[in-house]
Amino acid sequence: MADYVFGVDIGGTTVKMGLLTTDGTIVEKWEIPTRKENKGENILPDVAASIEAKLSEKKISKDNVAGIGVGVPGPVTADGVIQRAVNLGWGKFNVNEKLESLTGIKTMTGNDANVAALGEMWKGGGMGYKSIVMVTLGTGVGGGIIIDGKILTGATGAGGEIGHIHVKDGEEKACGCGGHGCFEQYASATGIARLAGEHLAKWSKKTVLTDADLSAKAVFDGVKAGDELCIEIAKDFGECLGKGFAVIATILNPEAIVIGGGVSKAGEVLMDYFMPAFKNTVFADCGNCKMLLATLGNDAGMYGAAKLVL
Amino acid sequence: MADYVFGVDIGGTTVKMGLLTTDGTIVEKWEIPTRKENKGENILPDVAASIEAKLSEKKISKDNVAGIGVGVPGPVTADGVIQRAVNLGWGKFNVNEKLESLTGIKTMTGNDANVAALGEMWKGGGMGYKSIVMVTLGTGVGGGIIIDGKILTGATGAGGEIGHIHVKDGEEKACGCGGHGCFEQYASATGIARLAGEHLAKWSKKTVLTDADLSAKAVFDGVKAGDELCIEIAKDFGECLGKGFAVIATILNPEAIVIGGGVSKAGEVLMDYFMPAFKNTVFADCGNCKMLLATLGNDAGMYGAAKLVL
Repeated sequence: MADYVFGVDIGGTTVKMGLLTTDGTIVEKWEIPTRKENKGENILPDVAASIEAKLSEKKISKDNVAGIGVGVPGPVTADGVIQRAVNLGWGKFNVNEKLESLTGIKTMTGNDANVAALGEMWKGGGMGYKSIVMVTLGTGVGGGIIIDGKILTGATGAGGEIGHIHVKDGEEKACGCGGHGCFEQYASATGIARLAGEHLAKWSKKTVLTDADLSAKAVFDGVKAGDELCIEIAKDFGECLGKGFAVIATILNPEAIVIGGGVSKAGEVLMDYFMPAFKNTVFADCGNCKMLLATLGNDAGMYGAAKLVL
Repeated sequence: MADYVFGVDIGGTTVKMGLLTTDGTIVEKWEIPTRKENKGENILPDVAASIEAKLSEKKISKDNVAGIGVGVPGPVTADGVIQRAVNLGWGKFNVNEKLESLTGIKTMTGNDANVAALGEMWKGGGMGYKSIVMVTLGTGVGGGIIIDGKILTGATGAGGEIGHIHVKDGEEKACGCGGHGCFEQYASATGIARLAGEHLAKWSKKTVLTDADLSAKAVFDGVKAGDELCIEIAKDFGECLGKGFAVIATILNPEAIVIGGGVSKAGEVLMDYFMPAFKNTVFADCGNCKMLLATLGNDAGMYGAAKLVL
């Protein structure tokens, strides 16, 4: 049995890397820049070189490494083939085979959102559960589904793409995906900022938002301070978030939904705004789904990537 | 290796039973009545007696039976505990343990809709696929999710309860579950009949529905005959069906959706009405999900129950 494992989370700006023991303790974590030039051809060689350097530095032999887990920003099929990763300049190829040939170490690759979900289940907000959905409320809305401890990858690597489920009829503005009424249009940081702008334009009373940047943080700071407009915006946001969660919980009947991403920093106050719509919309048998906050932040992908090979 | 397996599908009126070879060929199928009196306490003893009689008749020893698979109308957790089965009079108990103690044969139990999905994957419309969602458009809308050949049971046995996902805002009529705008309110046989009634009340031109029973069959017979009102109703129904399918496909990214139940008897014409809304609403990466018709009819549960133990 090997003692170590690498977790690698490849993002558009930096690659987050971690050397962990196989029980999930971080020995060391570090970052390298993501070199996207020439269709990102340097990214995996850079990762391989960084791993080789770390093994030399720590005097760890490759025999004592269980493998390298990798999270990438794009759809990945179960055999490690990325379909495309626009943010990295990558087209379609087998990431597992490429990194294995560079390092001689077994590699497993997953979509970054799915891998982060696995990380939160293993060592984060979803610890103790085996079937969870992680929902990342960031610039967009990402998702990862874990069933009995395994990622639901999907037929084309797009399992858990919950940001684009339809949650609202009659929306006139288009989502980035071309759809109308996508979950992401309301439940993301961008979505809250948009809702805030729309509400503010119709608001004549005093509000803290008048002199603030319109952001999820400003809205929830306002909610905590009792600002009337912010509370209205949070209700609107919560209605869509709760409806989206209800659809997810009704289909999958998970033990828990784990909420991460920038918006989740608002904390427990979020629950007050989405729980009424959730309870009102979810099928009763699925209604006791736990609602938990993610705890690993930017390290979730690194943990989850490592778990992928264990 | 055993040569035989039993598949048992317990319904509110009859229990459908099958003796199959382990490669999935039916040796014999038969039915016994479902005796619901005294909280359904006779149902499993009746099943056990029927199995014992069949084994004697066919001169098959219990050692040569891989097991008994059972489908029941209610939520069942992975360990075989039914939470309740209102149609049978049952409360909460472990079906596996009960039938094993009655027969001495290993038993596996699942929810009837989930088990039917497994059957369609094994020997029906979903043959050749490993990750499918079966949607049963009957009196209500039932569902079963199969991921990598395994039923998605859910934390409380309610996985795949897609009949109660929210698909339409602003609905005033309540669903049987108490919700408003549930998939089942539009996409079931009952739902189509209701839509037909609403449309007919506002219709002044000639239509075949004037002298017909308002049913899914009447509507789709009318569609095939070019009836203008029936086409309007089918469009309305198709809009909701397509939106529901899109949400399911976007979350799960299955290889295929298999459509069963009474409404599916309308056949390929259904596709014309739900595919536009599906294509318009689904996340692009999940849009190549195959749409297939179920082929096993009432035998799906028996096949799937048998597959449960194999």
